[in-house]
Amino acid sequence: MSLPRRVSILGSTGSIGVSTLDLFEASGAEVEVVALTAGRNVALLAEQALKWRPTMAVIEDPELLPDLRARLQGTNIQCSAGASAIEAAASVEAQWVMSAIVGFAGLAPTLAAARSGAVIALANKESLVCAGPSLLRVAKLAGGVVIPVDSEHSAIFQVLDSLNLDKVSRLILTASGGPFRTWSREKMARASLDEALAHPNWSMGQKISIDSATMMNKALEMIEAAYLFSMRPDQVDVLVHPQSIIHSLVEYADGSTLAQLGMPDMRTPIACALAWPDRMSWPAPRLDLVATGPLTFEAPNESNFPALSLARQALALGGVAPAVLNAANEVAVEAFIQSRIGFLDIAAIVADTLGVAETCGLIRTEVTSDLATIQQVDSDARRMAGEVMLGYAGRHA
Amino acid sequence: MSLPRRVSILGSTGSIGVSTLDLFEASGAEVEVVALTAGRNVALLAEQALKWRPTMAVIEDPELLPDLRARLQGTNIQCSAGASAIEAAASVEAQWVMSAIVGFAGLAPTLAAARSGAVIALANKESLVCAGPSLLRVAKLAGGVVIPVDSEHSAIFQVLDSLNLDKVSRLILTASGGPFRTWSREKMARASLDEALAHPNWSMGQKISIDSATMMNKALEMIEAAYLFSMRPDQVDVLVHPQSIIHSLVEYADGSTLAQLGMPDMRTPIACALAWPDRMSWPAPRLDLVATGPLTFEAPNESNFPALSLARQALALGGVAPAVLNAANEVAVEAFIQSRIGFLDIAAIVADTLGVAETCGLIRTEVTSDLATIQQVDSDARRMAGEVMLGYAGRHA
Repeated sequence: MSLPRRVSILGSTGSIGVSTLDLFEASGAEVEVVALTAGRNVALLAEQALKWRPTMAVIEDPELLPDLRARLQGTNIQCSAGASAIEAAASVEAQWVMSAIVGFAGLAPTLAAARSGAVIALANKESLVCAGPSLLRVAKLAGGVVIPVDSEHSAIFQVLDSLNLDKVSRLILTASGGPFRTWSREKMARASLDEALAHPNWSMGQKISIDSATMMNKALEMIEAAYLFSMRPDQVDVLVHPQSIIHSLVEYADGSTLAQLGMPDMRTPIACALAWPDRMSWPAPRLDLVATGPLTFEAPNESNFPALSLARQALALGGVAPAVLNAANEVAVEAFIQSRIGFLDIAAIVADTLGVAETCGLIRTEVTSDLATIQQVDSDARRMAGEVMLGYAGRHA
Repeated sequence: MSLPRRVSILGSTGSIGVSTLDLFEASGAEVEVVALTAGRNVALLAEQALKWRPTMAVIEDPELLPDLRARLQGTNIQCSAGASAIEAAASVEAQWVMSAIVGFAGLAPTLAAARSGAVIALANKESLVCAGPSLLRVAKLAGGVVIPVDSEHSAIFQVLDSLNLDKVSRLILTASGGPFRTWSREKMARASLDEALAHPNWSMGQKISIDSATMMNKALEMIEAAYLFSMRPDQVDVLVHPQSIIHSLVEYADGSTLAQLGMPDMRTPIACALAWPDRMSWPAPRLDLVATGPLTFEAPNESNFPALSLARQALALGGVAPAVLNAANEVAVEAFIQSRIGFLDIAAIVADTLGVAETCGLIRTEVTSDLATIQQVDSDARRMAGEVMLGYAGRHA
């Protein structure tokens, strides 16, 4: 087994980035870190850089560049800042690139890394949601490959027989159900930010935690899965499994269902992506099914979590509908964080924005790897979502 | 995907044989049945032969040959009888042979089929337990392969990455726990035949049902798994899972555990073996985890089910110790069926027989594909078990 030697981490100070470096350390993997990039956490980026000695360290916010330079003074680490510097860092030759920037901002550097022909360990959902088919084509043409790092897609990737895709009947994404799994719709309408952030199983960033509470996270994963594994929308199902031990399943036409299980620790899917097509050893937490207790399963409550049907709707609409869904969701989540709208308004705003985008023809835009076009769609969708939101914000205030 | 065309079923009237023919019918597979063999159920064998029109039909008991001939009169199906006729049928060129004869009697025909270079779908445990390493070598040299049909080994086969065996930390065989899972040792000591036959999840033959009640079935499976997948004895664990939905798991060194799940229907592992390395479609019962209810797990009670540690002991002793264990168990189960010993005596007799066989050097015999040697070991072990049993039968009576 040989691990990639030259690796980069886009988004090294986020939870996935930190877990990736943790894994390097815990496994004793002999990696040479080419680039580390971060958004605004200059202190942690500098600390990581001093430890891992990358060729370059990039901070997104240009105002923090002097601080980064000061912290890395006396090293020969190249410091730079800004979105284009992150894209440049993503393009530098590495054999393996962890794409872990959260949100739409992760798209451009992921495409840049894909063009370089590296193996892309993909934790950024938006790259697939907004440009999935194009990203996969770009990676393939450059001789690279996209390996999912999300625990659900990693699970599917591990048990999907790519030579017998026509014998797959369903992909079943498991979902913890989030903090509001057992709440009534009335109670959800009054949910506070803190309540929405209280995810039962995983420690994650704010945006992803709220997406988990609305199950929009799972909706985005449905879209990702359909793109990543070439499945029809009706072949992607969601199963609520509060213990988050079975990370997802693949059902075959012969009656077999294959699944990946594990402790909720992102280092395991990262290890799968790092060692693929081999496997690696590291002191991983072991799953003890006796200690874990019973594994339970529920059908998702589609009326309390309309995000799931919105995902199916977006996939059925085709074109850039998934990108519109994603942009509208980012706008709505931000507004919820700022207490401008209520919790249930998030999905409602996404639904209304999809409707507006359909009416005005935006969603018929072809999916492309041309960033200007994707960004135009994103910005159009955000504007539409903003307009839609006015009505909700008024009611909430 | 192309299924094998020329197929034979050794043991066609048993539960696995019947399920195999059911699968052919349910899937509409275009198979040409070369041979069907049975032990004594001449009526069912004839019925199957009239439907599937094999080249040959073989009944083990020679006294039933006239009956078989009479029932197949007017067809051009060749009828024969006796163990050597079954072996001959197993040797006839087929691309795929289902080895589903129960007990030690399945060994010779399985070896014969392996020598023919066919794909062996293996449901007969004893072939692996008594001659595992030799059987696998014979099959490989002839250009064939052995694919397990037991639901547990099929599960492992489906999720085992054969190119990364060094990264497998454990195979975890699941066990329903049998009818006595929650019984006290005192109650087990007084268990009746009917109670031992009342398996909660699977409908099986008498011998296998009792092996399930003692968990000797699982012990034999531990030995099979160690041979089949080249694992050390300490890498094969057992996990009690009363619902029998997760059929077994493979734990990797990177923290991932892969599993196969399904309804308790033997046609699914048979379908996997039939279509391997592809997969096939048939109207399989679909697993509905919501309807199934919680999946629970327990550590096996090793003191109530000493069979499990006997398996480890036999693997550690090496040589033909697993064959001795198997022979002693067949003798003891037969005695239990005849009410000559108590339920707990079965494992005790196996343990004592292993001890006697070790003392007298029998277990140091080298594992071989030479039938005369294997049969001699089997008969020596049966004799030793018989002698050991005298003490128990005396106490029971």
